[in-house]
Amino acid sequence: MISKRAIETPASPIRRLVPYSDEAEKRGIHVYHLNIGQPDIKTPKIWYEYIEKYKPEVVAYTHSQGLLELREAFADYYAKHNINVNPDEITITNGGSEAIMFALGVVCDPGDEVLTIEPFYANYLGFATYLSVKLVPVTAHPEDGYRLPSMEAFERALTPKTKAILFSNPSNPTGTVYTYEEVKRIIEFAKKHDLVIISDEVYREFTFDGRKHVSAFHFEGIEDRLIIVDSISKRYSACGARIGVLVTKNKEFSKGVLKFAQARLCPAETSQYGAIGLLKLGDEYTNSVRDEYQKRRDATYEAMKKIPGVVVHKPEGAFYLAAKLPVDNAEDFIIWMLKEFNINGKTTMASPLNGFYVTPGAGVSEIRIAYVLESEKLTEAVEILGEGINEYNKSK
Amino acid sequence: MISKRAIETPASPIRRLVPYSDEAEKRGIHVYHLNIGQPDIKTPKIWYEYIEKYKPEVVAYTHSQGLLELREAFADYYAKHNINVNPDEITITNGGSEAIMFALGVVCDPGDEVLTIEPFYANYLGFATYLSVKLVPVTAHPEDGYRLPSMEAFERALTPKTKAILFSNPSNPTGTVYTYEEVKRIIEFAKKHDLVIISDEVYREFTFDGRKHVSAFHFEGIEDRLIIVDSISKRYSACGARIGVLVTKNKEFSKGVLKFAQARLCPAETSQYGAIGLLKLGDEYTNSVRDEYQKRRDATYEAMKKIPGVVVHKPEGAFYLAAKLPVDNAEDFIIWMLKEFNINGKTTMASPLNGFYVTPGAGVSEIRIAYVLESEKLTEAVEILGEGINEYNKSK
Repeated sequence: MISKRAIETPASPIRRLVPYSDEAEKRGIHVYHLNIGQPDIKTPKIWYEYIEKYKPEVVAYTHSQGLLELREAFADYYAKHNINVNPDEITITNGGSEAIMFALGVVCDPGDEVLTIEPFYANYLGFATYLSVKLVPVTAHPEDGYRLPSMEAFERALTPKTKAILFSNPSNPTGTVYTYEEVKRIIEFAKKHDLVIISDEVYREFTFDGRKHVSAFHFEGIEDRLIIVDSISKRYSACGARIGVLVTKNKEFSKGVLKFAQARLCPAETSQYGAIGLLKLGDEYTNSVRDEYQKRRDATYEAMKKIPGVVVHKPEGAFYLAAKLPVDNAEDFIIWMLKEFNINGKTTMASPLNGFYVTPGAGVSEIRIAYVLESEKLTEAVEILGEGINEYNKSK
Repeated sequence: MISKRAIETPASPIRRLVPYSDEAEKRGIHVYHLNIGQPDIKTPKIWYEYIEKYKPEVVAYTHSQGLLELREAFADYYAKHNINVNPDEITITNGGSEAIMFALGVVCDPGDEVLTIEPFYANYLGFATYLSVKLVPVTAHPEDGYRLPSMEAFERALTPKTKAILFSNPSNPTGTVYTYEEVKRIIEFAKKHDLVIISDEVYREFTFDGRKHVSAFHFEGIEDRLIIVDSISKRYSACGARIGVLVTKNKEFSKGVLKFAQARLCPAETSQYGAIGLLKLGDEYTNSVRDEYQKRRDATYEAMKKIPGVVVHKPEGAFYLAAKLPVDNAEDFIIWMLKEFNINGKTTMASPLNGFYVTPGAGVSEIRIAYVLESEKLTEAVEILGEGINEYNKSK
């Protein structure tokens, strides 16, 4: 009685090994959770202050596009990033997740295809499958730091059913920040082949070593083919808020998205009030968070470099590092780390990167690390990983 | 560049006339909003108390199925209603809306068909279209109080693509409460034709005149074909919480729903804490709310009965009344009420019922009234409606 789409929807590679870590924790093992992008940075107190400030007597439906005051706050935020949008062009969504689903839904019918750069944010595949859309990969490689694949590779992936290109910049899971030239190549390609660009800019602020983020909105003449997906989850360490946005200047898309949004009524009202507060925070806050992640990046990267046989490039943004390990199968290795290995009662959990690819067999030796813990913990966690690799390869 | 599904998704009949009421309000007209099920009853204070009580320093992702404590609270709630489910069989969703989408998605692939009793909750059509599922209507009629259509009518609507039957009980938009015999007929029909039953029981408590609600879960031997959709929105006057649930004992469905849920990560954490609080409220609270709606039902029904030419039955539950008006086109009439009519600066807005049907032309003279205001206001609002009908028919 179950649908094909339910069978074909993949289990999240970020969450599917959780039963093994639950088991390890039951046995008293301390597990460093580098599998999930859940930061330990405290959510700014203004979140609760704004919930307290509004506190309506009736917790009511809001406008389906979200509270006007919140959409205005987002428009102000974008203006600071040289992105000129008005509140009507913004839809508040249940996290970036729903923004991606609405974007796919407004552009694609069942069987339509969307190009994406693999490894990609794993849940793209879940959303696409849910909507019966086919995700078509163009593969980036660990050896060159997962840079943008060649335009020839994109051309080869095109079919008459290709409707859009979806990518994240900075990239989850690789930490690669696309340069102006790279973003421009994506945009030229989309224009040439009449594709919609779905640009996931959730990690906009998290660019390291003085890099500037290049938004797809910084390019002219593509307003009608551009959808931006965004979220407050990472920026303000408020993953549980489930407040994202979809931004588009294409009025037809806006109309379609509004109909999807009306059907599900509205995002959580209380979260919307908290989010208005978070958006009052200025650059000082986001800069301090970025600096903290840069430190963590450094700690993680330095420790990873020391592990023999690992292929790793210094991440440029987001808070992820992707690396190729000297193991046959990274997923088996992670399970082994959770089941069989510990140092002084501690072990490390990462996400197998194979679930961030659709090409069969791709990424089988790769992992994603979310550097969302304090630097010393990260250093220790990666050292444990290194010891584990050594032991694992000996045991085989 | 826009998808067919975006074009075909209907605008919400509950919200699409809002621009007309906005206009009227700008002209200084007081509009009685009987179009939307947004109660004016205060959300119990325990909502904010529980948000304050938990107040974690990091607003974090929760389990994708929802916080265990909240799922336990729901299991306790169901036990009180003679529904025996455990927390593993419960998924917390972004409102009942997402529960319906997950239910349709886990059972249907694009092109599959779902039977529903029309008029139905209008957003069913939005969700189905979003997922490329076809909603097939079996029509109920105002003349007999929108009772369950005959089984012959259901049989005629069957095709080899029919996968499920979706209905709400108590019914939104008609206020009809299906009897034990009626629910049993639906269940026997589903068993006979191997269909999944998606039972929307959001208005469970709101049954009037001593009626008892019959849940689909009260029947034996159908556990594997049953999905219950539920929500705290109406029960606790917390529409903006966006906390719903999907309940099923079918393990395959649970697994599929978990994958959908993992992709979108989790429902809003802050809302989940508030909801734990609301579920602590006992029968005393829900009984008092039900009694208040029964009073409002009485006021609305008594006033409606007095309007010449109206076909109306006394609603038995939920907080809606559906009626056939002596006008050619109820949508035109409602727009006219907002644009042209007022009594002492006041007018009344209802929802046109045509958007709650899929059969072309059906329900064209019918409206839905949500009796979510205080009784005196409802009486006045319906009297204005009556005067409006009189004036409208004279003006034509």
